Amino acid sequence: MSFVLALSGGVGGAKLALGLSRVLPDEDLRVVANTGDDFEHLGLTICPDIDTLTYALAGVDNPATGWGRRDETWNFMAALAEIGGETWFRLGDRDLATHVERTRRLRAGETLSAITDDHRRRLGIAARILPMSDDPVRTRVRTEEQGWLDFQDYFVRRQAGPTVRALDFAGAATARPHPEFLAALADPALRSVVICPSNPFISIGPILAVPGVRDALAACRAPVVAVSPIIGGAAVKGPTAKMFAELGLGAPTASGVAAHYGDLLDGYVMDAVDAGEATRIRGPRVALAQTLMKTLDDREALARMVLEFADSLRG
Amino acid sequence: MSFVLALSGGVGGAKLALGLSRVLPDEDLRVVANTGDDFEHLGLTICPDIDTLTYALAGVDNPATGWGRRDETWNFMAALAEIGGETWFRLGDRDLATHVERTRRLRAGETLSAITDDHRRRLGIAARILPMSDDPVRTRVRTEEQGWLDFQDYFVRRQAGPTVRALDFAGAATARPHPEFLAALADPALRSVVICPSNPFISIGPILAVPGVRDALAACRAPVVAVSPIIGGAAVKGPTAKMFAELGLGAPTASGVAAHYGDLLDGYVMDAVDAGEATRIRGPRVALAQTLMKTLDDREALARMVLEFADSLRG
Repeated sequence: MSFVLALSGGVGGAKLALGLSRVLPDEDLRVVANTGDDFEHLGLTICPDIDTLTYALAGVDNPATGWGRRDETWNFMAALAEIGGETWFRLGDRDLATHVERTRRLRAGETLSAITDDHRRRLGIAARILPMSDDPVRTRVRTEEQGWLDFQDYFVRRQAGPTVRALDFAGAATARPHPEFLAALADPALRSVVICPSNPFISIGPILAVPGVRDALAACRAPVVAVSPIIGGAAVKGPTAKMFAELGLGAPTASGVAAHYGDLLDGYVMDAVDAGEATRIRGPRVALAQTLMKTLDDREALARMVLEFADSLRG
Repeated sequence: MSFVLALSGGVGGAKLALGLSRVLPDEDLRVVANTGDDFEHLGLTICPDIDTLTYALAGVDNPATGWGRRDETWNFMAALAEIGGETWFRLGDRDLATHVERTRRLRAGETLSAITDDHRRRLGIAARILPMSDDPVRTRVRTEEQGWLDFQDYFVRRQAGPTVRALDFAGAATARPHPEFLAALADPALRSVVICPSNPFISIGPILAVPGVRDALAACRAPVVAVSPIIGGAAVKGPTAKMFAELGLGAPTASGVAAHYGDLLDGYVMDAVDAGEATRIRGPRVALAQTLMKTLDDREALARMVLEFADSLRG
């Protein structure tokens, strides 16, 4: 039985992961989640990308926000504000159960992997969701205006406003990759690796920064295909486009993302509107598709296309 | 400026505390709360009696349950059940903010007193709410059926079903009373001490078990008046009546509660339906009143009566 391994951040990545989960047979998908966005807040360990993936794959995600749960209420936040608690990071009443229970279990000595896996099974998800590491990795950004900031301080509290000059994935150098992550990359049953259309710097970057991951991807015999998060020079969501210039990488382009991944890629999928850039991409084979995923059909269609394209690259 | 000190557990005590807060000038009431019911659950420190008092005095309590907040929602609990969390202790979405924020601040090194005081001020409560101690005291009950149980395991999880043979207030022997508690008892401005109609064994008992409290009450020059939680041989709420027989104290009676408090009392207020028991009470002066508090008017009327009765006992 073959399986597909996807690398994903939050919103955009979770859309394609959902598409993959719907077009692949049950249990044929494993998704490695970025944990660089994780942080401690109100005494709780919050893992935004794991949660966005879990909620999306379980069909309980909030389609309006892209994060959190659908049919959500906000009475916890309202009451927290009354007693002077911090409210810049909004936690819905349903969503909060995930953080409280995860934190309790982590304190009791369970691993993030084990908790994540138990939660996804209880929510009826067939795909595996693998935290990139059980060791804490915490993304920090060096900003022009405020110096080094914790990621969520930059991303949520300051709404990605400050100018980012550098990134650091604290803890990454000594983090051990999820054991099943490297094993999957070396597994002959691996059909393809899909790098989801997530921010290459802050969503995929931390995954690639875990020791051993780049080498294992390079050594991997299955095709590695990335999907561009940039469409027509803009990101669908988040600060991806803005970060290009801030990090000195020039204008945000689909070809720029391919160049950033360099020789990790065997294939690269970008939107048809960016067809003109195809000739600028050195290395990976390029395929064009409709990469904007508005509907569930869009997610499934892109997932099918990416899988077929990857299959066509098998040596 | 004189002030009144009330000793209280949860529901019944909070009703009279609210009455006292409404008939006394602002800031003339200080309420000492039982913390023997406190426990750690889901990684959170939960203080049921402090919270019931705080919500009642702030006017945000749930009149239907007697605990928790009004206009409450339960989406946290529903989501917690989905991922396999423990749901026997029900935490509403609004209520949860208190526990999360308190736990965060306790872990940051603040005292329970400081946090409780900040919360009551933010909720617009003029009365002081004093935890009986900042040191953890945890009530345990020895049951016929299951041996020793933590209080909330007995009280909520098993709905006070097991037969109670003994009580233990773990930590009480070394707990330091809230410094303002003993200071208040020695303060010449103290007008009276009101022991609210709470369970004498498990709500007032832990307060009296804190070293120094009994002596300070005995030495206190202001009148000490208790209000019976037993009316016509039954408790309004909770296991008070049931515990009488289980603890070998015979049938539950208003006079039995007075005997339990012994010579701590200068005055005792019991319901008019128990008038026949007045002659059995040795020691304190006895007054009859309507002690069942269904309406806000009932709370205020009983509070006024108790204060006037206590004033009449001043030496």
